[in-house]
Amino acid sequence: MYNMYNQSDLKKIVNSALVNLTYNTKSDRLIDPVKYVLSMGGKRMRPVLALMACNLFSDKIDDAVIPVAGLEVFHNFTLVHDDIMDNAPVRRGFPTVHAKWNVNQAILSGDVMAFITNECFLQSPSHLLAKVLRVFNKAAIEVCAGQQLDMDFEKATIVTQDEYIQMIELKTAVLIAASVKIGAIYGGADDRDAEMLYEYGKNLGLAFQIQDDILDVFGDMKLFGKTAGGDIIEGKKTFLYVRASEAGSLDQRKKLQDLYLSDSFEPAEKVKMVTEIYDLLNIKFLSEKVVADYLKNALGFLEKVNIAQERKEVLIRMTFSLAGRDH
Amino acid sequence: MYNMYNQSDLKKIVNSALVNLTYNTKSDRLIDPVKYVLSMGGKRMRPVLALMACNLFSDKIDDAVIPVAGLEVFHNFTLVHDDIMDNAPVRRGFPTVHAKWNVNQAILSGDVMAFITNECFLQSPSHLLAKVLRVFNKAAIEVCAGQQLDMDFEKATIVTQDEYIQMIELKTAVLIAASVKIGAIYGGADDRDAEMLYEYGKNLGLAFQIQDDILDVFGDMKLFGKTAGGDIIEGKKTFLYVRASEAGSLDQRKKLQDLYLSDSFEPAEKVKMVTEIYDLLNIKFLSEKVVADYLKNALGFLEKVNIAQERKEVLIRMTFSLAGRDH
Repeated sequence: MYNMYNQSDLKKIVNSALVNLTYNTKSDRLIDPVKYVLSMGGKRMRPVLALMACNLFSDKIDDAVIPVAGLEVFHNFTLVHDDIMDNAPVRRGFPTVHAKWNVNQAILSGDVMAFITNECFLQSPSHLLAKVLRVFNKAAIEVCAGQQLDMDFEKATIVTQDEYIQMIELKTAVLIAASVKIGAIYGGADDRDAEMLYEYGKNLGLAFQIQDDILDVFGDMKLFGKTAGGDIIEGKKTFLYVRASEAGSLDQRKKLQDLYLSDSFEPAEKVKMVTEIYDLLNIKFLSEKVVADYLKNALGFLEKVNIAQERKEVLIRMTFSLAGRDH
Repeated sequence: MYNMYNQSDLKKIVNSALVNLTYNTKSDRLIDPVKYVLSMGGKRMRPVLALMACNLFSDKIDDAVIPVAGLEVFHNFTLVHDDIMDNAPVRRGFPTVHAKWNVNQAILSGDVMAFITNECFLQSPSHLLAKVLRVFNKAAIEVCAGQQLDMDFEKATIVTQDEYIQMIELKTAVLIAASVKIGAIYGGADDRDAEMLYEYGKNLGLAFQIQDDILDVFGDMKLFGKTAGGDIIEGKKTFLYVRASEAGSLDQRKKLQDLYLSDSFEPAEKVKMVTEIYDLLNIKFLSEKVVADYLKNALGFLEKVNIAQERKEVLIRMTFSLAGRDH
């Protein structure tokens, strides 16, 4: 009989590890904002996926728990700094760190999270530390490169679909890929299986981000907990926008671009007008097709992992739940 | 015959390692600011001290070079972010990253330097990685806590001498201590010697920072390359200020505090008036005495290191050069 943890068990395990983190410093002023962001909740997707990947290969996941909690600390580090850069006042319904404290505090408390992440990884079984840290650190640098592209895109007039995919691959997908691979390494996966799981995670991450873009416009807002069309209101170049720009006629592209740049519409009006263009061009369907393709790729890589099918079921359920958000 | 490197050799070796760093990313926009700050020069004190400590125990230092270059990358990471927080336009005679690019770019390019630091350490001999990374990462968290105290002090009316020492210990001394200890570990030092060298580095770091505060007011500005009394003009609570506040009468303390807070004086006039109070209270002499004490402590710990005296000579020369700045 296998000992398989489900998503809800793992989330509890991760949350408990995050609450019990030790910080190697007595500076409450420095750490209070860290505790604040880590207590805001969220799916804990990265450590949960990592533990599921670990659990694929091993009934015992205990040794991986604190190290993979570091993935959540790192993810939140990027959120704290991204929110400064985006000038975002709210995250998950709470004031962002720079809004609640100030920008300097958000820079500094963000910084320390990068080293708290290391601290978590330093609790790895010693024979795995170098291997795991290499995978993590490569992803961390790529995430910064992805954020750079995202910043560059704000100023760019035209962003192609390929450029957009490259950006979300770096900014979002590689960390999910690395999380899954790292979990697999803790579980004892061989290099080939670990690599298959990296590719699984990367495709899942791409599907997840595009689905996120779709839901921002077309999702059930009560379920999703955001304002409908928030990305449109902020003028964020999402997959839908980029796809519509490529699919539309010159006229439609120009109209979309003008709408996005314009300040002369009420937010709701702007959302309505952009959505009308999306509908004309069948963008929801086209984007969902892309999500489905990445999802299929992800599951294809998972299939190639050399482990009993029954062990994979939790991860397969999680895959659908993340990329489809159960819709 | 020992193979001992001198300060100038080591600085060249470190600079060459920094120029040849690989960044694991093709994002020039992200990395250009990193190359920019790393090309600004500086003493490379931390990696040079680390290599000297390595060289104490081993004629061969090659394996340590790239890892300890990470100490310089980390130090510059803190400078990039500190300069944002301090709103500083110039560093070492060059525009700061946020001044040359913008604040968001300085946050992001700073962030990636934290992971480039890890990347350097990941090139450690594998049996030393965990040990070295633990020492570094503890120091990194303490440096953040030190910057937190420094930020807190800006708003505080009174800072005691003990509080000031605690702040510079965290913000400056522990990284120098960790650098020396890390170098010693690469050289093959045993735990006791590594610990002695940590204490040596901590005391050297304290001496160095207080000497820096003294030179800002009383140094030969042509040699030092800064504006005389820059700290006074910026209202920075230095060791001299804190010492004078404790040594002065209530009247003198009030006068000093008012002067520091006031905007109604010309910079040169303000520097002159504060310096007069320092002179009345003999602050230069008192502070130099404290530097000498820390220096003596440092050399005492170095003496306890169980290695031939001839091997220690380069490090002893460096010690005097850093803490006394050859004055």
